[in-house]
Amino acid sequence: MKLTAKTETWKEFIGIADGISAAEARIHVDSDKVWYRMVDTGNVAMAIAELPIDAFSEHTFEPCSFCIDLVKFKTAFQFGGKEITIDMASSEASSIVVESGGYTHSQTLLHDATVKKDPNFPALELPGIVELNGKDYGAAIKVGSTISEKVWLKITGGKFMISAMGDTPADKIEKVFDDAISCSGESASMFSADYLMGMNRQLNGDIKIHLGVDHPFIIDFDFAGGHGKGKYLLAPRVEND
Amino acid sequence: MKLTAKTETWKEFIGIADGISAAEARIHVDSDKVWYRMVDTGNVAMAIAELPIDAFSEHTFEPCSFCIDLVKFKTAFQFGGKEITIDMASSEASSIVVESGGYTHSQTLLHDATVKKDPNFPALELPGIVELNGKDYGAAIKVGSTISEKVWLKITGGKFMISAMGDTPADKIEKVFDDAISCSGESASMFSADYLMGMNRQLNGDIKIHLGVDHPFIIDFDFAGGHGKGKYLLAPRVEND
Amino acid sequence: MKLTAKTETWKEFIGIADGISAAEARIHVDSDKVWYRMVDTGNVAMAIAELPIDAFSEHTFEPCSFCIDLVKFKTAFQFGGKEITIDMASSEASSIVVESGGYTHSQTLLHDATVKKDPNFPALELPGIVELNGKDYGAAIKVGSTISEKVWLKITGGKFMISAMGDTPADKIEKVFDDAISCSGESASMFSADYLMGMNRQLNGDIKIHLGVDHPFIIDFDFAGGHGKGKYLLAPRVEND
Repeated sequence: MKLTAKTETWKEFIGIADGISAAEARIHVDSDKVWYRMVDTGNVAMAIAELPIDAFSEHTFEPCSFCIDLVKFKTAFQFGGKEITIDMASSEASSIVVESGGYTHSQTLLHDATVKKDPNFPALELPGIVELNGKDYGAAIKVGSTISEKVWLKITGGKFMISAMGDTPADKIEKVFDDAISCSGESASMFSADYLMGMNRQLNGDIKIHLGVDHPFIIDFDFAGGHGKGKYLLAPRVEND
Repeated sequence: MKLTAKTETWKEFIGIADGISAAEARIHVDSDKVWYRMVDTGNVAMAIAELPIDAFSEHTFEPCSFCIDLVKFKTAFQFGGKEITIDMASSEASSIVVESGGYTHSQTLLHDATVKKDPNFPALELPGIVELNGKDYGAAIKVGSTISEKVWLKITGGKFMISAMGDTPADKIEKVFDDAISCSGESASMFSADYLMGMNRQLNGDIKIHLGVDHPFIIDFDFAGGHGKGKYLLAPRVEND
Repeated sequence: MKLTAKTETWKEFIGIADGISAAEARIHVDSDKVWYRMVDTGNVAMAIAELPIDAFSEHTFEPCSFCIDLVKFKTAFQFGGKEITIDMASSEASSIVVESGGYTHSQTLLHDATVKKDPNFPALELPGIVELNGKDYGAAIKVGSTISEKVWLKITGGKFMISAMGDTPADKIEKVFDDAISCSGESASMFSADYLMGMNRQLNGDIKIHLGVDHPFIIDFDFAGGHGKGKYLLAPRVEND
């Protein structure tokens, strides 16, 4: 197997796993796409990333899957090359060679049995949907996190809003997104600001949030210049006050 | 009451209180200006800031005063708006709403009785006066602080100089300001480098230092593009060696 | 004695000593050059720097040597002046005055007897020599250091390569320098990544590495726009696995 893509594309593809602080990944190479689907260690968040096979300038392979240590893999981001190639001698090989910028990094694959099974993505009908700019969304999560560990997301009356409460109920920050691309339904949930912050780094373009009432929320987003599809799912934080 | 000004103007206005590490402020809204006057927790330093009412693009109010938590207020500097508005329902209200960039931050006011009374600014005739560039002054304080916790300011023979001594008397750094705008009188005092460093951040244009012999020193400076007037007063550190 | 050079020239000259974490230096002023030669505290690394006398815009002196505390001397790099002058009243003086940007820094010299004697540079015939870009070399050392404390340098078959092994022998990063300016001989040695990293900061242009088999390695490089000559020597780390 040989897979070559731009270093920037690999960074964004792997960066989605960083959003849930994943240490390892099972990469699937199918005839039409390369993808992974994983849960975080706390089983609270899920990350999905997929790239169509034509995002790779070189792709010679039999469909297969292999498990990598993400810290090791990410050393290639320091090699300074424009592209990164993964070279695997056969689909049964126990190691890969990552090549970039004149460097070669041989690394053992993780045993498939030791890496968490791919989670099933739940079939969910969530009552609220909003499309908006990912950077504006991310900035509001960050602002909320400065006064609280918990952030509320709410859709009501055709408006999306993010709010957080400080040390007293009278101390409250609220951002209403008057300029959302679209917004419909009614729903509200509270989430851990830390979890949301982790996911922010990948949200540079427009995003679509599906929001439930005490249900998980889902963010759909593009990456790699629109070629890749990413998705995060996060269970809400139980409100106990 | 409603007071709106550029975010940058609010940053500079509140930043003067940061120079003495203040955590709270009593803001006075008079018919012609908005101002505060405060001492630091150690009663060693005093900060004064005032903005004429026309520095505010919107100003609807009865003269009043109110006490704010500066950490809370400063979250507005992350809202990304060009202007910040303080909205207070009445002069007896117990809370304000700070609005900027689509965010609203409701925050409880501090009880007037719990915030240190405004200090009186002492009437002082200090024997030395120097006008110079605030950045050059600040750089010399920083250099002095690298070898000592105490910095000397001295005016003599028409020259202003800043000096600091290292671990031995033979290790000494001295900067003579040959290019001061004006310099007169004779005086010298030693101050804590940490206190002076705190005040440096606001000194971007020309400043005027009034220097005494074992007396407080005073810095007068402008802010908000010349509209605002700021002042620091610092009691000298007792020399004990 | 009076020696004046550009601040940038002094920074590079003294920066070579930083590469082996030296705290003090014996500076020699000869009729044709200013130089030092020193070992690190662990007696593992050696640094040599020399500047021809015409790199100094002002040079009035009797040949002499004097010992300085490098931390004190380096405060002059914060003075903001374009040039730095060292002024020493006589070759027997116990202090110097460092002048720059309107600042004067008087500082006691260290007693010659308290500063390590200048080491002799060993006469070595090392079997491998490679010339290459110092920044590319430095980047590869840094990459190697991310997976190991030990880095291998190897010259074989006309190629220079740098490699490092991770937690298992199957985890290995290797960079082959196909674009070295010249490369000859056969040799290989392993070194502490930390020591090599320290020396990297000074290697901005082309460098020449002399590499032995379990022998010290030597880097020759220029500084101060080609006027200065620098050299590092490093004893190899004993391989114990």
